[in-house]
Amino acid sequence: MPEPANIPRPTIKRLSLYLRALEKHESEGKPTVSSRQLGSLVGISDAQVRKDLSCFGQFGQPGIGYQVEGLTRQIRRILRVDREWNAIVVGAGNIGRAIMSYPRFGEKGFRIIAAFDASPGQVGMKAGGCTVHPMEALHEYIVEHEVHIAILSVPEHAAQEVATQLVDAGIRGILNFTPVRLDLTEGVEVTSVDVSRSLEQLTYQIAASEA
Amino acid sequence: MPEPANIPRPTIKRLSLYLRALEKHESEGKPTVSSRQLGSLVGISDAQVRKDLSCFGQFGQPGIGYQVEGLTRQIRRILRVDREWNAIVVGAGNIGRAIMSYPRFGEKGFRIIAAFDASPGQVGMKAGGCTVHPMEALHEYIVEHEVHIAILSVPEHAAQEVATQLVDAGIRGILNFTPVRLDLTEGVEVTSVDVSRSLEQLTYQIAASEA
Repeated sequence: MPEPANIPRPTIKRLSLYLRALEKHESEGKPTVSSRQLGSLVGISDAQVRKDLSCFGQFGQPGIGYQVEGLTRQIRRILRVDREWNAIVVGAGNIGRAIMSYPRFGEKGFRIIAAFDASPGQVGMKAGGCTVHPMEALHEYIVEHEVHIAILSVPEHAAQEVATQLVDAGIRGILNFTPVRLDLTEGVEVTSVDVSRSLEQLTYQIAASEA
Repeated sequence: MPEPANIPRPTIKRLSLYLRALEKHESEGKPTVSSRQLGSLVGISDAQVRKDLSCFGQFGQPGIGYQVEGLTRQIRRILRVDREWNAIVVGAGNIGRAIMSYPRFGEKGFRIIAAFDASPGQVGMKAGGCTVHPMEALHEYIVEHEVHIAILSVPEHAAQEVATQLVDAGIRGILNFTPVRLDLTEGVEVTSVDVSRSLEQLTYQIAASEA
């Protein structure tokens, strides 16, 4: 199997979508799935599905399709969600609390084990089974609990400073809900969830479909 | 200028990032910006910046760069954020309330004018200057207020049914915060914000950087 680094980025982005479709198939007790079924669930052509899956040596059998269980396991392994990841929420405002309360992350291997907030009024608050700690406890907590992922949902003005603290404490990846482009050392991965940008893509698409 | 439909999708995705960088430049009173400065702010090469901007006829002048004001105006026009968009939030849970409370959407031309929720306990609640209405009022509200965009943050099991109602009432675009792949008629645009998927991309990147 090729190393993950050799799989094209657009394919990697689609792997999460395939995984959702496969999990749905698995929950319905179906042992196999065709490229056409997968494509229809994900919203792309069956030719693209076959091309994507061939990147890591998966070839569906004509008339039978792909083995749901094996393919699911392989995609989980490539995305590294075949293991558990400890994550913390930093910034327990509306977005932070929504993340803390979302029960589906646990099913997907992401354990939100604690939250942190600079405001004394938030400290001690609980949501989704985890508790808000003071920011002063952040560094020690990350080191002691081997936390690898932080979900950053602090106010914009605090984003860079807090991100730097997270990396200093050993965080390897940040899911960034702030609109700030974080300036961090090499080897720290950042994925951004930028709702304004998603809205702009949406208005562009609406306009383009009217053109 | 080419029609928006002729600009490659990856370029369109970067336009939002250029717009952020340009707004920062503009707020600092700088009249021009070089492709290198833009690239550094956005995190891509200056060659890619020049290629992207040339798609819509913008060519920086050697030694001077691009005119910040003109470029900003042009990108806003392409993304259709040079006008106001009325948006509603459907589902006033944690995510919905976070969206209602976020002051920055207004600055960007997105007016969240109302929210809707199926739970009587939420109806009448206010956040960020807008009020939660009962779901029964949804159809009439959309028609009367010329709402084009809905932000869908209902529970997963209700997503498809509510999305169909939104489209029946005239909604042209949905920002989908649910993990459901919505099955809608042609001509309705959907942009998804899938936090689980973003987390999976992050763990993949962490693993790939260790490989």
